[in-house]
Formats: sequence, structure tokens, C-alpha cells
Amino acid sequence: MNYTTGKIKVRYNETDQMGIVHHSNYLKFFEFARIEWLEKLKMPYLEIERNKIILPVVNCELKFLKPLVFGDSFKVKVHCSKKPTSSIEFSYDIFNSRGEKTTEGRTLLAFLNSDTMKPLRCPKIISDLF
Amino acid sequence: MNYTTGKIKVRYNETDQMGIVHHSNYLKFFEFARIEWLEKLKMPYLEIERNKIILPVVNCELKFLKPLVFGDSFKVKVHCSKKPTSSIEFSYDIFNSRGEKTTEGRTLLAFLNSDTMKPLRCPKIISDLF
Amino acid sequence: MNYTTGKIKVRYNETDQMGIVHHSNYLKFFEFARIEWLEKLKMPYLEIERNKIILPVVNCELKFLKPLVFGDSFKVKVHCSKKPTSSIEFSYDIFNSRGEKTTEGRTLLAFLNSDTMKPLRCPKIISDLF
Amino acid sequence: MNYTTGKIKVRYNETDQMGIVHHSNYLKFFEFARIEWLEKLKMPYLEIERNKIILPVVNCELKFLKPLVFGDSFKVKVHCSKKPTSSIEFSYDIFNSRGEKTTEGRTLLAFLNSDTMKPLRCPKIISDLF
Repeated sequence: MNYTTGKIKVRYNETDQMGIVHHSNYLKFFEFARIEWLEKLKMPYLEIERNKIILPVVNCELKFLKPLVFGDSFKVKVHCSKKPTSSIEFSYDIFNSRGEKTTEGRTLLAFLNSDTMKPLRCPKIISDLF
Repeated sequence: MNYTTGKIKVRYNETDQMGIVHHSNYLKFFEFARIEWLEKLKMPYLEIERNKIILPVVNCELKFLKPLVFGDSFKVKVHCSKKPTSSIEFSYDIFNSRGEKTTEGRTLLAFLNSDTMKPLRCPKIISDLF
Repeated sequence: MNYTTGKIKVRYNETDQMGIVHHSNYLKFFEFARIEWLEKLKMPYLEIERNKIILPVVNCELKFLKPLVFGDSFKVKVHCSKKPTSSIEFSYDIFNSRGEKTTEGRTLLAFLNSDTMKPLRCPKIISDLF
Repeated sequence: MNYTTGKIKVRYNETDQMGIVHHSNYLKFFEFARIEWLEKLKMPYLEIERNKIILPVVNCELKFLKPLVFGDSFKVKVHCSKKPTSSIEFSYDIFNSRGEKTTEGRTLLAFLNSDTMKPLRCPKIISDLF
């Protein structure tokens, strides 16, 4: 089960003086993709937060195969790599407009109660989606 | 009445492919300076937010005289340009390590109740500071 | 003469702990809009930079009427407010998905030679566009 | 061999609506720390770039133990975890003002010629430092 975003253009402000997209931006692209996916699955992130659940990233990994540069557009493919428990793992691949894979990544997010900041089991409404 | 920050180094990620600090970062430098100032005045921003007051920027202006580049460090001089009412105005000057003024700016912030998002008069504890 | 971007979704990372889009991001939205416009006019920004011309922002102004929040999408309407000379001025309006104007802005950009960092007159290929 | 930065304050703009520092910022903190270290070792990054060498991140990993929040300050401890070859690996630990470790990370950077974007062996002036 997976989801691919529409085409996203590199923004000028995402570049650095090396002339490539600064590596910190890819975590934002991953976040954008998983949130858009949850939305398509009728589980908008705002709804999750309204239920006093937050999903901070507790662990992540990125591998840069090719840089994205200004002028490029890209798509993010995201999939849920494991059955959610008290955390949920997403894996990502980014492809540039020539279809080349530029980036791979993985993020592990914890389910926390936003009032107490205590861990939660994955709510059924979410585990049922995957 | 005014305050000048300590020396701040340009961070690599703040540059763009033109090789200068991206203009959006200066609003972050201004924010850093006014928050540090409030802290020195024993009015930490966290304390303000705990009193259900938020201070969103409603208006701002920036003038770039010289670029800041990676390798530079700079100081931000901030002063309160008008008596606070339902809003508070700060003015800023940024100086690079050679003492040259690089940037001028102005931000107007409104006092809002964070629950209702309604405007407030400047709380006495804050107006007394200026 | 003006251009309106497609619908852009607020990204989670663009929010701050006030629960609204941090004001520094709007300068990025403006930049995105003017670059996309130049592209539609067959004057891609990369082409401009290849001609050793850069366009740093020298002056800008923003007015926040309503906050954008996570969950919102928005469009940026941009127009060229004056005949370009050695600088070019763009004005912007941002509208949320309910069609409400949330933000107004203006940026003045200078034409510089990227080798010498000296001012240039607006190249004919650009002034002809407007 | 290692280096610890001075105390760095969390900036308001680094928070997100969860009320914690957005995870993408930690890659910026790591970058700041390794660049400051190279500077202390008399190998400023600008000097490296002037020699037509760039050091893009090709791989990274982050582990979040505790969130940093607005109001916190922190230090980054960085060390070079392996003998540099055609790449250089740095490891990082972030500690909050109570001395608690909040974050661990690792970044692998490649040495590239900035003209050709081809891999290089670690220049002797750099390998001699470690």
C-alpha cells in the first residue's frame, strides 16, 4: 500500500549556496507526502490532532542519491513499511522529473497524547487504514 | 530604549544559490532579537504565552542595504519605536562584523487573546517596560 | 497584467507554536509565485541566472489580514506594479480556499550582474514581458 | 577528538504547532556545529569551497530522545567518527540546558569537486586535522 504525491516544484528558497536543495528540506517533503496520504485516506492530520494525538518523528534516516536543484520538480512516493503499533513507520522515495530516484528515506513516528505527552497505542481508526 | 544582541553567525542553511542569506531569514533574526530583549526585561515570551497572549506580526517592512553572506556574523539592534497600544512596533538595524549596516526593518505585532484570537490592549506588565 | 498560482497547501513545517503559518514563509510564497510567473512568460529564472543576472530582494513589505493555518490551501496573485528600470516591483495578494484575502505584499528586486554584483538596467528580454 | 558548541537558543520560528522544535531543524544544528568545528581547526568552510571542494550530505540518521522546545537552549557535541576517505562521517549529540541528551545523529558527507561534481579523496589538509 502506497501513495505518490503530485509533481512538486523545488522552491528557490530551498537551495543553498552549493546550488542544490539543502538536505534539511527533504524531511519537509516527506512530511508533506505522509500528511497528504493520510488526507486521501480520509484521516486528515487536523482530525488526529483534534483527538489529542500527536505524531512526532522519533527516528529518521535519509540517503541522497542525486541532488535536486532549482528548476527540478519531483514526486514523493510513500508507503507504510510496518504494521503500526505504538509507532508508525513510513518509507519514502523521491523521483525527479526525469524519473530518476534522487532520495530514499524512512521516518518512525510515535503516537503521543498531546496533553500528557505519554505514548499511546496506534488508534484503531489509523491501524485500520493500513 | 533599545537592545543589541550578541554576535550571531550566519548559518550555512540560511544561504541560497545566489550565495547570500535568503531574505526570508531576516524576519527570523528580528524575531530572535525582540524575544531576547523581552527576556532581558524579565518578560520572557513563554510567560506572555502562558497568560494566553500571543503576538502575531501583522505588518512588516524590510530594507536590504547589503547582503549578509556565509562567513559573516552580525548583531541586531532593536528598539520599540512607539508607545504600545493594542499593538507594539519594533524597529531593527542589522550590522555585520565590519560594523556596516546591512538591513533595516520594522514589525508591528498585535496583542491577541490566544483562546479567542480577539485583540487586546497591551497588558500593563508590558507597557510598563517601555 | 498579472498571474495567479494554482492551489498551494500549507505545509506542516510552516506552522509555529502559535498554530499559524510563521510570517517569514510568506516571502517564500511570494518568491514562488513570481518565479512561476516568469516561467509562464517563457523567462525561466534559471535562464536569467545563466545570463549572469541575479535579482536579490532589496525592499519588501507585508500586511497580514488573516492567518493561514495548517489545513488551508491558498493561491498567490502577483502583478508587476511598475515599469521595470534598474529594479522590478511585484505586488502580491494571497487568498485562502474560502476566497478571503489573507495577505498583501510588495517586493522590490534589483537587477545585478552576478560576477561584479553591480546594478544593471532591466534587460530588454525582461522589460519586453511587462 | 571532538568539539562542543557554545549554548544555542531555540528560535521561535523553529517550533511547529505541536509546540516542539520541528525535526528538520536538527540537521541545521548539526551543520552549524561541524562548520564551527572546522573553523576552530583553522579550516573554515569558505576556504574549502574556494578550493573548489563541496561537501554535500549523502546520508544521515537522527534519533530524537526528547524534544527541544522554545525557551530551551542547547549545545551540540560533534565528533569525527571514522578516518576520512572520499567521505567524512560526523556524529552528534545534543544536550539541553539541564544536561539531558535530547538528540543523536550521524551525517556522512562526500568530497566533491564543485566544477565537475565528481568525487574526490579527502584533501590532505583535512585528513591531517583528524
